Amino acid sequence: LAADGAPSVVRIASLAAAAGEIVIAGDEAHYLARVVRVRAGERVTATDGRGSTATLEVIETGTSIRTRVLEHFTQERRATLELWCGAPEGDRADWMVEKLGELGVATFVPVHFKRARWERAEAKRERWERLAIAALRQSRSAWQLEVRPPVPLAEALRSLAPTSARWVCREDGAPWQLVQGAAARAQCVATVGPSSGFTDDELKSLADGGFESISLGRSRLRTETAAMTVAALRAAADNA
Amino acid sequence: LAADGAPSVVRIASLAAAAGEIVIAGDEAHYLARVVRVRAGERVTATDGRGSTATLEVIETGTSIRTRVLEHFTQERRATLELWCGAPEGDRADWMVEKLGELGVATFVPVHFKRARWERAEAKRERWERLAIAALRQSRSAWQLEVRPPVPLAEALRSLAPTSARWVCREDGAPWQLVQGAAARAQCVATVGPSSGFTDDELKSLADGGFESISLGRSRLRTETAAMTVAALRAAADNA
Repeated sequence: LAADGAPSVVRIASLAAAAGEIVIAGDEAHYLARVVRVRAGERVTATDGRGSTATLEVIETGTSIRTRVLEHFTQERRATLELWCGAPEGDRADWMVEKLGELGVATFVPVHFKRARWERAEAKRERWERLAIAALRQSRSAWQLEVRPPVPLAEALRSLAPTSARWVCREDGAPWQLVQGAAARAQCVATVGPSSGFTDDELKSLADGGFESISLGRSRLRTETAAMTVAALRAAADNA
Repeated sequence: LAADGAPSVVRIASLAAAAGEIVIAGDEAHYLARVVRVRAGERVTATDGRGSTATLEVIETGTSIRTRVLEHFTQERRATLELWCGAPEGDRADWMVEKLGELGVATFVPVHFKRARWERAEAKRERWERLAIAALRQSRSAWQLEVRPPVPLAEALRSLAPTSARWVCREDGAPWQLVQGAAARAQCVATVGPSSGFTDDELKSLADGGFESISLGRSRLRTETAAMTVAALRAAADNA
């Protein structure tokens, strides 16, 4: 059990189909056996990271862990945030991904901008996926952050859902509260520029694509701080 | 000049007294000469991190940088957030301090809780101070994060200003928005527990001290994520 007494969470990819017994193997078994140290008779929460959750009772522990499904339910998602993000400096993307996962961001899209391309993003995706799973366990959510492959801005704009609210984070934008109320339950896309900033052409493309400028506060924020701030504001709005 | 064309920011401790010429030395001179590469004739913003700001014109560069004061002004602070924070896991405090600085938190108080004491916090204070100065430059604020020495909870409670709004961040607290409006301009103190959680006694002490429980979202957040989230919400509220 965690410090607060709630059951530990593991991520099981094929949960929706499972009934009766589930055998947990690999990383998640290691987590339960070595980190959490579960024992037979204890309960564990499993989620597939796509809205499906089950309560499991541990039958037997070892290198794999045998469990019995006690109950099983699915959740509807109330609101989503898709984050389009320019490359931050150095290794700052790693913890940014962890934090976006904890804060319940639905989709992280690394976007190539003219002044900053994502380097080795494909190689990093596997690590980001692991960080997203760890964040899922930590946050006890039924939804795992989806990490997309990097795309150029023009391609991201072409794939935009017509129903989404669209924001671009800018120092001189409208205060966040002005748009927060209007779109508190909608599907939202927020764009955060790279550390080297947007070009005028990029800002025009975003404006043409219906992106409204919002400001996250009086400070100039680093890329990863701005991304986390949008995620935090959205998580708080969704909890109102 | 930065990517967006705004003058670079340096922190000069004794700015309020300065008039005429200022010679910048040490870390800040290194930053201007090597990182920003300022040249004679360019402008730089200097702040003491306590509300005083000056626009400087560079006269001569070198290992120290000679400047002329063009204008000088002071700002009133509208709202402050003091963050009482339990120890997070591992090295997560470093980037937390950086982010709290960027987001304009006034005061960071490392608080010893029963289940988690701050280790080597005195040794870390010098690094945190450097991170706070870097965050000041980044955020272009006139206010530097003040890093206090670690204190036990009981001592922090004894030093509390009577006028402050007081929040403790809890999964089962009231949604943030309910308290945000009421205290958007006040002096606020927010408490975030250590990774191992509060004890019942600690929660009782906080409640007795007038701390109201607030929830930051549906997710269970790590200590450092919760601290950053409060800071982000406060920064956004202050910008309304």
